[in-house]
Amino acid sequence: MELLERAISEKGTVLPGNVLKVGSIINNQIDISLMCAMADEACSRFKDKGVTKVLTVEASGIAFAVLIAERLKVDAVFAKKSKTSNVEGEVYSARCYSYTHRKENTLIIPKEYLGSADNVLIADDFLANGEAVSALLDMANRAGARVVGAAIAVEKGFQGGGDRLRAKGLEVFSLAVIDSMDGGKIVFRKDK
Amino acid sequence: MELLERAISEKGTVLPGNVLKVGSIINNQIDISLMCAMADEACSRFKDKGVTKVLTVEASGIAFAVLIAERLKVDAVFAKKSKTSNVEGEVYSARCYSYTHRKENTLIIPKEYLGSADNVLIADDFLANGEAVSALLDMANRAGARVVGAAIAVEKGFQGGGDRLRAKGLEVFSLAVIDSMDGGKIVFRKDK
Repeated sequence: MELLERAISEKGTVLPGNVLKVGSIINNQIDISLMCAMADEACSRFKDKGVTKVLTVEASGIAFAVLIAERLKVDAVFAKKSKTSNVEGEVYSARCYSYTHRKENTLIIPKEYLGSADNVLIADDFLANGEAVSALLDMANRAGARVVGAAIAVEKGFQGGGDRLRAKGLEVFSLAVIDSMDGGKIVFRKDK
Repeated sequence: MELLERAISEKGTVLPGNVLKVGSIINNQIDISLMCAMADEACSRFKDKGVTKVLTVEASGIAFAVLIAERLKVDAVFAKKSKTSNVEGEVYSARCYSYTHRKENTLIIPKEYLGSADNVLIADDFLANGEAVSALLDMANRAGARVVGAAIAVEKGFQGGGDRLRAKGLEVFSLAVIDSMDGGKIVFRKDK
């Protein structure tokens, strides 16, 4: 998606440890016109797939997921990273390592919000090693739900998570795929 | 807002410790038609106030804030609860105690996302003791920004935070104000 690639090139910064900072547009400040265009683009791919629920992970996936859910007229669910006092009853849980946050989280979704009648679209702002998407996929499978695909804002292609998920048969639609950030230069994949 | 009050009455549960669980509609699963109507209602109050930025706290405030930002055609910013590896540079920070999570957080907003040209609308899903709104207000003031008000989905009126903020001159617009949850019975304020 050219608009997103241009925004990343102009406003993104490569921080030590191959961390891409796009806080001014995606995951701290949200550039609303860009994010709405991103949600439109994701919906153009998945609008005929009978999606009944958009599934994401708190916190930075929520903006993208909710704007997609609004366009598809379906509810959104976000997995929490801890069981808070306002969560009760049985939950699905799955461990996942966050590359950006450098810590292992246990993602939690109450069982009441995901079921066998759901056609789930996974949505997230970043895909690197694919741990979060894999954890969501695993929980959706255990709920008996069907996963129609994953809409990702930025895929760090060089970390391989997206291609591993595609090889397993998941439709992963990433709006921008970065193949290299060597020396701070961001190179996008052309043949997505 | 009658639609929200009815949804809370029908789908909310009062958990021990005066915690209101509305996970099926607001802060775990997001009922998208309800949340869009809530954003519309908030915008009807603040649309002529020259808002340039909607400010919230991760994670459960993001959905409401982003849908408001979309309608007002302005960017959104969410304060983080920890300084992650994709945050660099100087930040505003403010301590706040979360009633729901029963822990003290240090909220962080990078200075580059909030400045003296901003007319800020604070948005959040819950207001109980008012700690999060006060922390956001404090950081906005330090940034030299003007705060035009706060749009809140659910105010727990009996905890007094909303009224304390109003007494200080902040325009707090809560879509539903709960005056009592004694014995699990949810009573809404009528004369908002």
